[in-house]
Parts: sequence; C-alpha cells; structure tokens
Amino acid sequence: MTKSPHYTLHYWGGIPGRGEFVRLVFEFTETHYKDPKKPAPLLSNTGATSHPPHCAPPILELSNGSYISQTANILAYLAPRLGLDGVTEGMSAEDADVRRAHVNQLVLTICDLNDEAHDVHHPISNRLYYDDQKPEAARRATEFRSWRLPKFLSYFALVLRENAECSNASGANAPAYPRVIGTKTTTADIALFHVMNGLEHAFPKRTAALRQDEGLAEVWKLVDGVREEPTLKAYLGSKRRAEFGQGIFRHYPELDGDE
Amino acid sequence: MTKSPHYTLHYWGGIPGRGEFVRLVFEFTETHYKDPKKPAPLLSNTGATSHPPHCAPPILELSNGSYISQTANILAYLAPRLGLDGVTEGMSAEDADVRRAHVNQLVLTICDLNDEAHDVHHPISNRLYYDDQKPEAARRATEFRSWRLPKFLSYFALVLRENAECSNASGANAPAYPRVIGTKTTTADIALFHVMNGLEHAFPKRTAALRQDEGLAEVWKLVDGVREEPTLKAYLGSKRRAEFGQGIFRHYPELDGDE
Repeated sequence: MTKSPHYTLHYWGGIPGRGEFVRLVFEFTETHYKDPKKPAPLLSNTGATSHPPHCAPPILELSNGSYISQTANILAYLAPRLGLDGVTEGMSAEDADVRRAHVNQLVLTICDLNDEAHDVHHPISNRLYYDDQKPEAARRATEFRSWRLPKFLSYFALVLRENAECSNASGANAPAYPRVIGTKTTTADIALFHVMNGLEHAFPKRTAALRQDEGLAEVWKLVDGVREEPTLKAYLGSKRRAEFGQGIFRHYPELDGDE
Repeated sequence: MTKSPHYTLHYWGGIPGRGEFVRLVFEFTETHYKDPKKPAPLLSNTGATSHPPHCAPPILELSNGSYISQTANILAYLAPRLGLDGVTEGMSAEDADVRRAHVNQLVLTICDLNDEAHDVHHPISNRLYYDDQKPEAARRATEFRSWRLPKFLSYFALVLRENAECSNASGANAPAYPRVIGTKTTTADIALFHVMNGLEHAFPKRTAALRQDEGLAEVWKLVDGVREEPTLKAYLGSKRRAEFGQGIFRHYPELDGDE
C-alpha cells in the first residue's frame, strides 16, 4: 500500500456539480489530488478505465489504475481512507461496519436532496433546456420550496439534535458545531454543507426564510461551522473553487420565493 | 458473531417497491428474514431505532439491534455477508474493496434508473396524485422511452458484453447467462433483474420493442437467466411476492409506446 495514495478526480470543469462533494472531502483533509476537468473520454468506454465502464462523472482514478464512479460510492470508498467514516478507536469490526453504513445512509439521503434540487429546473428531461420546461419547473419549484425542502431540513435537524443527545456530543464534550453522527467530521457533514451551500445560491429567499425557523437552527450551525474550517475556508476563497452557475444549483428568481 | 444472523426488513406491504431489491437478495440466497410490512413507526423516530433516524423505508433491522436504511446502502451492507459482492478467493484486500465499490457503483446506477422510472408518473411531486400531473407525465414519458431508457440499457449491455470479454467469463468458462461483473451473481445482477422486471410491467410495448434490439440482447439474457434461478423462481411464483401495481412501476397505457 502506498503511503500517499494519489487520486485523480475526473469531472467537468467550471461547475461545482457532483464533483464538488469529492473535492471538498479532499480539500478538508488536505489530500493531494489531480483535477483535469475533462471526464468525457472515460465515459462508457471500458478500454479507457477497465471494467466496469462509467455512466457519468465524477469518476475517481486510484493510484493502482482502478476507476470508480457514482458520487456516494466514491465518498464511501474514501471515507475510511481519509478518516471521515466516523469510526473511533475501540469500536468492534461489526460496530465500525454499522457506523460506516450510517454515514453512507446519510450521504445517500443528502444526494437525494441534491438530485431533487436539480430536478426543480429540469423536471421533464436533462436533454431539454430549462426554457423548454419552464411551466413544469415552476410547478415543481413550488412543491420543492413548500414541502420537500422543509421535509429534508427537518429530518437533518432531527439527526443533528438527536446526535448531540446520544453520542456524548453534548455538555462539556460538545464540539464547536454539531455533526450528523458522533463528534468527528464525516463525509456526511461535508456533503450536507455542500448541498445547503448550493441551495443558498439557488433559493436565496427560501433559505433566508428557513434560517429564521428555530427548529432548523442546528442545520445552519453545521453549515456555518463547516464553512469556517480552516482548510475548507482556504479552498472556498481560492481560484480552485468553481462558482455555482449553470450546474445542479441554479438561481432562477422565478423559481424562488420566501414561502 | 451469530452463525445465522436474523434480519428484519421494514417496508410497506402490498407493493414490491424499493423493498423488493432487498427481498430478492434474501430469497436468492435463502436467507431467513422477517417482513412485517409496516415501517411507519420507524420513520424519523430515533427513539425507535437509535441514531440516526430514517427518512424512508426500506429499513433493515440487524440482529444486534441496529437499523440501516437507503436501498443501495442496505445492499452494500449485505453483499459481503451473503456472498453477493463479487469478491473471489485470492483477491488482495485492496482488490476486494475495489470490487465491492464496482458492485455498489452498478447498484447505484440501477437505482438511478429505478428512480427515473418512478418519476415518469410523478414528475412534479410525490405529494400529488398522478391524475394531478398527467400532462407533465406524458411529456416525461416520451423523453424516458425515447432517450433515457435506451441510454441506460445500452450502458448495461456494454457492461455485460465487456465483462464477458475481460473476466474469464467467455468461452468454456462462460456462465449460463451473463453477469455484470465477474462470473458469480452479485447484488447488481439481482437489482438489474428487478428494475427490468418492473419496466416490463410499466412499459410492456416499449420493452417488447427493445427486446428486438440486438445490441441489448445481453440485458435480456441476464433478466431471463436470473428469473429462472431456482430460489428466485420459487419466490416469484409464491404468495410472498407482491404484484407490481401502484408503486414505483405502474402501467398507464397512455405513458407507454413502442417507439
């Protein structure tokens, strides 16, 4: 095993997109990675990456020549290697497996929210422009703002509150900001930060209104806490960080609203 | 560690749904499991399941009292325990991890297809009835039949063809029907069977037309091969198997078509 494994992240350049979940994990842990920003030659092309081929980026290239794709899968692979799986000293092998499964479960739920946020502006087809599905997007946006987004955020607020109560994360042991599981940062905390950050870009009115909801306070404490982590703060202020724009999180004023 | 671990699958009764991915894995491997068909008390309720709470079923209860959710996460947890992770004797630990990641990658892509099939009849909101989003569903169905479905099936056909070439799965070593990775059945083969089975229910005309496409032949060989596996055949013919109906895969004739 190499002491400093060498990762290459294959993803489109110019947008945060799903690649950003992986970039943030590398940046937070100060893991060296290459980011060539041109995944196209690797798509559905076994010859370029060995079996199995890939349906979509992000695609992670490992130092042994293997490639793996699917965002949550990449995070599950990296989590134990980068100390982001929530496993602590003294856990049994079975407890560690369950802990990793819980982190993955939360990451997958965050990916679901990410996908639903995307589908607000593309409810009919990815192949069509937003302009070709605006009435449908307006209808879906209303449902997302009034029902789905509060549902997801209430769930994550519950996760954060309950974790503080049940994981020795309260009182004198309380970390500076809440985590979704245990007291150490996991891939799920970083993924939740990213999606919330994207939602603040896409739905500034709606997220500003939800910041006033006391029942969701823990979610914003996590978002603001992760944003100030020194390694991430340096990255977020750097040129390596692509701005939100025409990717998953898009700001169309007509799809936003404070209700 | 218990010799015969005891699993309980918490999912809605009466529909195959996402629970069916897990049921098929248990049935194929003849693993004992309970299926109480009433997940409601476990949802978003930490007290009932310990941290973290769950957003949606399926929820798997383990014999040690832990609960895990998210379909792909449950399959990733079970795969190595039920011999469905594609790992073979003599693999290094690192190669085994990559193999499990590849199986999980394929499962996640199959779950994406599953979700897109669902969203055909609910493109605007899960909270609304199909009748309240019929025009949008008709538009999305056209895109799904003409573009997304062939795109996914072409990808899986490529996966199956390339696997036969690169994994000693051709010639004299060829198994009776193709697998997505290696020569042994994995959770990804079973998941692909389930989604294709659901698509045949929901889109009988479109899937019948795609059966005529020689480029996709490997996909149908896998579907028909898995269907005839003795343990699954017994289950599929039993009363335990719920019929497709008002769940993820729904047959609305107006959303089907042979183009």
